[in-house]
Amino acid sequence: MATNRGRSFAIGVDYGTNSVRALVVDTSNGEEIATHVFAYPSGDEGVLLDAKNPNLARQNPADYIEGFYASVRRAVTAAKKHRGFKPELVIGIGVDTTGSTPIPVDRDGMPLALQSKFKKKLAAQAWLWKDHTSHAEAAEITAKAKDDSDRYLTKCGGTYSSEWYWSKILHCKREDPKVFEAAYSWVELADFIPAFITGNTDPLSIKRSICAAGHKAMFHTQWGGLPKAKFLESLDPDLAKVREHYAREAVPSDQVAGQLTADVAKKVGLPSGIPVAVGAFDAHMGAVGAGIKPGTLVKIIGTSTCDMMVTPMDRKLPDIPGLCGVVPGSIIPGMYGLEAGQSAVGDIFNWFVRNLAPAKYGKGDVHANLTKEAEKLRPGESGLLALDWNNGNRTVLVDPLLTGLLVGQTLQTTAPEIYRSLVEATAFGALTIINRLEEYDVKVEEVVNCGGIAEKNPFVMQIYADICNRPMKLSRSAQTCALGAAIFGAVVGGAYASVEQAQQKMTGVKKLMFRPDKSRAAVYAELYSLYKQVHDAFGVTGKHPQLDQVMKALIAIRDRVRKG
Amino acid sequence: MATNRGRSFAIGVDYGTNSVRALVVDTSNGEEIATHVFAYPSGDEGVLLDAKNPNLARQNPADYIEGFYASVRRAVTAAKKHRGFKPELVIGIGVDTTGSTPIPVDRDGMPLALQSKFKKKLAAQAWLWKDHTSHAEAAEITAKAKDDSDRYLTKCGGTYSSEWYWSKILHCKREDPKVFEAAYSWVELADFIPAFITGNTDPLSIKRSICAAGHKAMFHTQWGGLPKAKFLESLDPDLAKVREHYAREAVPSDQVAGQLTADVAKKVGLPSGIPVAVGAFDAHMGAVGAGIKPGTLVKIIGTSTCDMMVTPMDRKLPDIPGLCGVVPGSIIPGMYGLEAGQSAVGDIFNWFVRNLAPAKYGKGDVHANLTKEAEKLRPGESGLLALDWNNGNRTVLVDPLLTGLLVGQTLQTTAPEIYRSLVEATAFGALTIINRLEEYDVKVEEVVNCGGIAEKNPFVMQIYADICNRPMKLSRSAQTCALGAAIFGAVVGGAYASVEQAQQKMTGVKKLMFRPDKSRAAVYAELYSLYKQVHDAFGVTGKHPQLDQVMKALIAIRDRVRKG
Repeated sequence: MATNRGRSFAIGVDYGTNSVRALVVDTSNGEEIATHVFAYPSGDEGVLLDAKNPNLARQNPADYIEGFYASVRRAVTAAKKHRGFKPELVIGIGVDTTGSTPIPVDRDGMPLALQSKFKKKLAAQAWLWKDHTSHAEAAEITAKAKDDSDRYLTKCGGTYSSEWYWSKILHCKREDPKVFEAAYSWVELADFIPAFITGNTDPLSIKRSICAAGHKAMFHTQWGGLPKAKFLESLDPDLAKVREHYAREAVPSDQVAGQLTADVAKKVGLPSGIPVAVGAFDAHMGAVGAGIKPGTLVKIIGTSTCDMMVTPMDRKLPDIPGLCGVVPGSIIPGMYGLEAGQSAVGDIFNWFVRNLAPAKYGKGDVHANLTKEAEKLRPGESGLLALDWNNGNRTVLVDPLLTGLLVGQTLQTTAPEIYRSLVEATAFGALTIINRLEEYDVKVEEVVNCGGIAEKNPFVMQIYADICNRPMKLSRSAQTCALGAAIFGAVVGGAYASVEQAQQKMTGVKKLMFRPDKSRAAVYAELYSLYKQVHDAFGVTGKHPQLDQVMKALIAIRDRVRKG
Repeated sequence: MATNRGRSFAIGVDYGTNSVRALVVDTSNGEEIATHVFAYPSGDEGVLLDAKNPNLARQNPADYIEGFYASVRRAVTAAKKHRGFKPELVIGIGVDTTGSTPIPVDRDGMPLALQSKFKKKLAAQAWLWKDHTSHAEAAEITAKAKDDSDRYLTKCGGTYSSEWYWSKILHCKREDPKVFEAAYSWVELADFIPAFITGNTDPLSIKRSICAAGHKAMFHTQWGGLPKAKFLESLDPDLAKVREHYAREAVPSDQVAGQLTADVAKKVGLPSGIPVAVGAFDAHMGAVGAGIKPGTLVKIIGTSTCDMMVTPMDRKLPDIPGLCGVVPGSIIPGMYGLEAGQSAVGDIFNWFVRNLAPAKYGKGDVHANLTKEAEKLRPGESGLLALDWNNGNRTVLVDPLLTGLLVGQTLQTTAPEIYRSLVEATAFGALTIINRLEEYDVKVEEVVNCGGIAEKNPFVMQIYADICNRPMKLSRSAQTCALGAAIFGAVVGGAYASVEQAQQKMTGVKKLMFRPDKSRAAVYAELYSLYKQVHDAFGVTGKHPQLDQVMKALIAIRDRVRKG
């Protein structure tokens, strides 16, 4: 319920992989009155790459700062055209970001990369979530943590990922020790932005997101917060330094990180002093913006997916093997936040379009051309089956060294048939996540989808409905992450007493819903059992002692050959 | 050694899938003095198709007759420009054809399709080798023959193929019983052509090729020639009729089928009475034209491959599981002829180019464009591994219901990488055949390659050398099948006392040879062990009780869905 202070607005700022979006929202009903997207100017669509290392993905921290100023300023300017909006009516700001995206910082908590001597050093930049340079370190952390009495891995699916905080920092120590030495600490992007705009960047007192810390940095009250110094020292004696130089507490996003500084406020055209919520990862705030509640699976489907659920904390939740994270308060304060996901979905379709679409589909919108033919096919008609592992498997196998597979090709197999089989593969992957949740008693009563693919691709969504044999609902907002961030802005601004109350007013689903068709679902059930056999043989260690090593052996040979 | 009759010529006539070639050869040295290729006018490049059934491939028998007249007449005309050639110096004609390509014929041995009432009936046409409509019948014959005390399958690799004689006839009985009823007999194309041009088409006395009968029609002296009536009756009571209405004997191609009739001679510009050798399959005569001898593996590499060896008959040859055929006298009279092969090689590369080559490689010669990039890659560099089963597996698994597989795709995988992995897959398949031969003590001392891909594609041949870790030699002639047929013409014409003597003078290898590179071969040895694991898991029944059924289950679902 809105307070009686009259009309008010909140701003959500959503840091994506290629751009940052600012969204101005009416706190009374979630109406999105203005938005602006700022594309990061550095690198390849905002990502710094290394031609010699396809695993590397970094970002220029200066883009983040410039992006805040530009996106918020222009969104506020645009909002002024809306009757009833005034900058003075903005009561709170929320921020979500990609993650784990740790940034090496100096004693003041400012990115090393802003210093001229580190400006061109790749290791001194932000280590973007999809940087996979640290897979050896991830394997090492996993191995050490498995033997540890604190059972650190039980909260992150049994495997520590190369995408995560400690893997990346340990890799930096080994790959570029000078940068590691120069860094006083490593701060998550989700913590850095709220700290920077409120002037509270000191790493020792920064307001640290429970979402970022809990899902990616091994933070859990079960072992007293941060992983123990002894454990980190066993990986590298200097890792404990990083532990000492970062706030010990981690809190949910209904907490205030600070107030907008006068300097920043001036740059974006807002009054100073506006409360800013503690940050969180994009998917988690996106789940809030999509109306997540117990029983609701929120899927954010874009280049990859995040699949999120919450469960009340009055019931003890078992550890669920293969889930990236189970963190108290990471999505909605007071509930367990569960995160699963697929490492590539839209990215697989894009890969196919960029690399394998023949000329006859190549004019105009290639996705649309292929979809037009692919949607004429019936389930099973192509005889094809694919695995959705072109970018590894995040859930339920948690293995970045898995790769794609396609089986069933004949001399008649066409591009639209393969395109459809790739869409189906991602849906089979989605179903595997739902099944895993339900096997561990987390009942999925409805599925609400959001993200670019859910918004724009009825072909994909109908296949998801048929394969998962459940209705696929769509979030009312097309910008759920930014909306979720704005909801936290509304909460810290005092418009609502809780996130759940804000969600009731500010979120919803569309009328359009994709319902499963019985006969298609029946064929897909057969195909899924085949998918599961191939999935287990290649993906589950020990299921087939030769095949489970084939993908890894191919990668090992590839990496050795490429090194020369 | 040539006889002392002075200069002489032989003509080889080679019936391929899309065209027929006549070649005029100097018997003293194998010099190819004139040739003409006639493209079959009917259907799609000579093949009659059925939009509703991708397995169907038939040919119009009238094309064969017209093709003989046109190709030989024009080759003879062209030869006249050559000093020393006169039609009167042609001493013999040999004929090779695709197979098993059985033709339903009337009491006179003439194709039913030449009668107006059958002209448009697909079942009444020639059933081209690559027609796979009969896979259910092939499975039935395999099952029945496995239980039979005569062990018919021991000479054809343990599995009877849908490409072969009895499968096709049994399928006709079921699919179009009227055509089956009207057919007095079913004659192989390899038998029909020599019979037709010599006026000896009566099915009961036709000169029957041991090559065609032995490799595809279950003919073997071990069980007294043709399969027993009781066995055929167990499949269908009427099949025994076909057995009764076809010559009981089958002989090698150094035997004379008859003499060119005056009528045919006139049409082609040759004297009548020229001896015509008994026919044989293209690959077998091609092996002769490539200089096959004990220890030499001849590979004819085109859209598919045939791999052939001969071994002396003084040594008892064990039955080799998975070899299509082991037939006394089928290649060189007096030796065992061994036939293996891959169901698709060039066809797989063509499939990729037609269906999956992106626009950037699409201008001009797409194969050349992809090859240019693919040959820059080092073995293992792509991380990809493929199976070469897009058209099933002929050797060593003898299973038309296997399909293609590609594993190792990432989001960076490119079209040239996949193209190269498909080439490598066919080379791994080639190595699997070599290994199987050697496991059964048939030593492969050299490999001589011929056919379109061997002739024109150094990129493919180098990969074959590196993967097989053996030098790849090339046949001197680019038209080995027609040359092999001409060699048999030379033998029946009396220029040589034996095929081996003719080969010594008329065949040879090129100076160009592809030698394996040690370091590439080492990486490929690692990749081959991975190939073999995936090969066995998906292809060998019982190796992995779930995966071995995945490809078949996908096909079963596909076929059920397509039927509606």
